[in-house]
Amino acid sequence: MARAVFYHAGCPICVDAEQVVLEYLDKAKINPEIVHLGTERNRIEDAEKAGIKSVPALVIDQNVYHINYGASLEDVKNG
Amino acid sequence: MARAVFYHAGCPICVDAEQVVLEYLDKAKINPEIVHLGTERNRIEDAEKAGIKSVPALVIDQNVYHINYGASLEDVKNG
Repeated sequence: MARAVFYHAGCPICVDAEQVVLEYLDKAKINPEIVHLGTERNRIEDAEKAGIKSVPALVIDQNVYHINYGASLEDVKNG
Repeated sequence: MARAVFYHAGCPICVDAEQVVLEYLDKAKINPEIVHLGTERNRIEDAEKAGIKSVPALVIDQNVYHINYGASLEDVKNG
């Protein structure tokens, strides 16, 4: 199973993307951890190291997929 | 089943996103049509009407999910 993390910050665009991730990904192949960077602030560094520039974003193994644009990671860091 | 279309233009970022769409979406729930706007130019208008600003992008029902950024739709139109 691929290691996957979905990072968001609770924004409306984040919530919308999360619905798709939860609804349509094949749970037999991928079951992403959901991380709210607004509340789990100790994960911001992980997100940054993974190459995330904005949220929402889905990381699958080493690959980052930014899905639409809710907020920059800088905004999340400063918020 | 949700109606879904994955629009791309053959760019490296498009191909990478297409792999995720083909590999990880639950085919029992969603089975997107794959449209290459570089070759299927008669579909560009559909993409524009759907609200697509760049490729790669996945449309599920009426919702557009831009996945990373390969090229703007304007570039695709002018290419």
